Amino acid sequence: MSGGVKFPTVGVIGAGQLARMMIAPAIALGINLKLFAASSDDSAAIAADHVVGDYLNPEQVLAFAKSCDVLTFEHELIPNSIIKVLEENGIAVRPNSSAFIYSQNKAEMRKVLQENNLPSPKWELYTGAKPTEISFPLIAKSISGGYDGRGVWVVGSESELAEILKIQPSLLLEEKLKFTTEIAVMVARSPHGQAATWPPTLTIQRDGICIQTITPAPDLSDTLKVSAQEIALKIADVIGLVGVMAVELFVVDDQLVVNELAARPHNSGHWSIEGSVTSQFEQHLRAILDLPLGDTSMRAEFAVMGNVLGGAKTDMYRPYLHLFARTPYLKVHQYRKEVRAGRKVGHVTAIGNNLTTLESEVSHAVNYMNGAVDE
Amino acid sequence: MSGGVKFPTVGVIGAGQLARMMIAPAIALGINLKLFAASSDDSAAIAADHVVGDYLNPEQVLAFAKSCDVLTFEHELIPNSIIKVLEENGIAVRPNSSAFIYSQNKAEMRKVLQENNLPSPKWELYTGAKPTEISFPLIAKSISGGYDGRGVWVVGSESELAEILKIQPSLLLEEKLKFTTEIAVMVARSPHGQAATWPPTLTIQRDGICIQTITPAPDLSDTLKVSAQEIALKIADVIGLVGVMAVELFVVDDQLVVNELAARPHNSGHWSIEGSVTSQFEQHLRAILDLPLGDTSMRAEFAVMGNVLGGAKTDMYRPYLHLFARTPYLKVHQYRKEVRAGRKVGHVTAIGNNLTTLESEVSHAVNYMNGAVDE
Repeated sequence: MSGGVKFPTVGVIGAGQLARMMIAPAIALGINLKLFAASSDDSAAIAADHVVGDYLNPEQVLAFAKSCDVLTFEHELIPNSIIKVLEENGIAVRPNSSAFIYSQNKAEMRKVLQENNLPSPKWELYTGAKPTEISFPLIAKSISGGYDGRGVWVVGSESELAEILKIQPSLLLEEKLKFTTEIAVMVARSPHGQAATWPPTLTIQRDGICIQTITPAPDLSDTLKVSAQEIALKIADVIGLVGVMAVELFVVDDQLVVNELAARPHNSGHWSIEGSVTSQFEQHLRAILDLPLGDTSMRAEFAVMGNVLGGAKTDMYRPYLHLFARTPYLKVHQYRKEVRAGRKVGHVTAIGNNLTTLESEVSHAVNYMNGAVDE
Repeated sequence: MSGGVKFPTVGVIGAGQLARMMIAPAIALGINLKLFAASSDDSAAIAADHVVGDYLNPEQVLAFAKSCDVLTFEHELIPNSIIKVLEENGIAVRPNSSAFIYSQNKAEMRKVLQENNLPSPKWELYTGAKPTEISFPLIAKSISGGYDGRGVWVVGSESELAEILKIQPSLLLEEKLKFTTEIAVMVARSPHGQAATWPPTLTIQRDGICIQTITPAPDLSDTLKVSAQEIALKIADVIGLVGVMAVELFVVDDQLVVNELAARPHNSGHWSIEGSVTSQFEQHLRAILDLPLGDTSMRAEFAVMGNVLGGAKTDMYRPYLHLFARTPYLKVHQYRKEVRAGRKVGHVTAIGNNLTTLESEVSHAVNYMNGAVDE
């Protein structure tokens, strides 16, 4: 007897690093975690109970879902129509299809934000006719499926736009904003309607991929910090979010503009594993199980997270000998993915009160891990 | 490809809650964890890769050990003779048989401490003749196998002692000390000889079982704090420890006396999961893999840990609804063991700067979880 009869089973569609990082809080809380993986070699599948299946197959997904008490997601790729099939079959899906759609479909996201007077760039759907609202250069985005800079184009002319339309038949156009910085706010909401945010995070991008985050975002006024959290809470409320969600925002002078939504744990919230009393991963589990949410206070003045992007080195273990001796407070999270150029294969976090030191140690660690520096 | 070829596999003899709490840092560090469980229902076996076997069977243990890069323990029950067989077969066992024996055999422990002038109570082995060094009442202990007050007797007379000898043929006798408090110091040491301790922990016992710990131990002078850490470091060095070890000490007025050693993660170090930059579980993995040790600084001024002992309630999940709403910063660790009276089935931790509040919230949480209070 494992004493497990009283503990719920959470099913997760996907078994990448986000599911991997749910394992630790699930074990602490005693929750059974079960993953719907694409392969037994997936980042989280190598360390947790899972079944291998195809998320495009409604029968397979439904059979999996029936073995769980609550179903959630670590990516947006499962068709919303399949989520609806699950709901019609009485599965508790959290977030549900009508909340998750805003994370899956950028056109729906823009509509709901506009309807609720939430700050957006100028936007329109592109159907092949000349854009009416927005002038070039502009941003074109896939309606669905884009991430880490994929599915996003800076477009200088109508002919360029026509070329993209050939490979991507459905496009959202947005004005190209001259932003100062990019920030993200993580927000959590439970079926009861209890909601909580963490302090806004500065996300530093290179080539469309986040390389480092700093929490709380430095050089952001208290007014904008509060405003960013209010926007995140309002979005969570209007879409009926259950779980955690990243709200990515541009800071344009003293204005905030919503860039993207992702209704799941998110790279910009990884700092919370060490940096907050309650991590985004634990909070997601609490929220989808309708448990009271945890304290989102920070454990130190600053938390700096650096993504380890695949580089020349393929051995992600041996660097520990140097890095742990150099920075005894550095915390490492390995995703156990095959190292490929530019791919996120892990992250490191350092928390403390001296931001300059934290940034320097985190930068050094990721550069050492991927081979950009060798001492 | 999971990118796993470079990451070592750590084998653990035992799959109880200590192995369970190794899973989170193993996942973060990318280390493969493999457990030698008594049953697939064991606390850690339900959440990690494992084989089921009998630790009294050298062939089974050796076959398991050969599938791992390093072998370690979460309990002392495996015979030292079997550990030696593993070593003769080239297995990297950490701690090794000659260090682990002091955790397995209390007579050996007393001898090595005495030889190294480390503070001990008066002691002698009992062979049936009248005790020569110690007067009644005294403490009689099983040489091996005792824990949580089992295998320990307070003995008032020679006839009582003779009765115990009938059920326990091998006894260590120790003087009964009038101690003020009991403390424990966790220490880690790597094959390189790098060592680190955490601040001493006050362990509050009831009926021989630890019910609460407070770190750092309040009301302990700075001199005694340093002295306790020095004793732990010296023991680690003289026995050639690899891994973490708990050194339990009595505080007798302004003197420290070593009570017990346990060369593995220990209940008195559970606070370190949230309370320290590096938990005892992560540190144990670092030490046995000969990686540089992590920072043992505290994340807050105080860490209070309460053991959840089985009581009237058998449902350990439903209490979350009340407890998480009441104490949003409370952290829970479930062991997923069947609830039995007095059995440790989980623990809770709270860290912060107001010790009175932390003690009160932790006491409430454990009493609410086991049914001693109902609001």
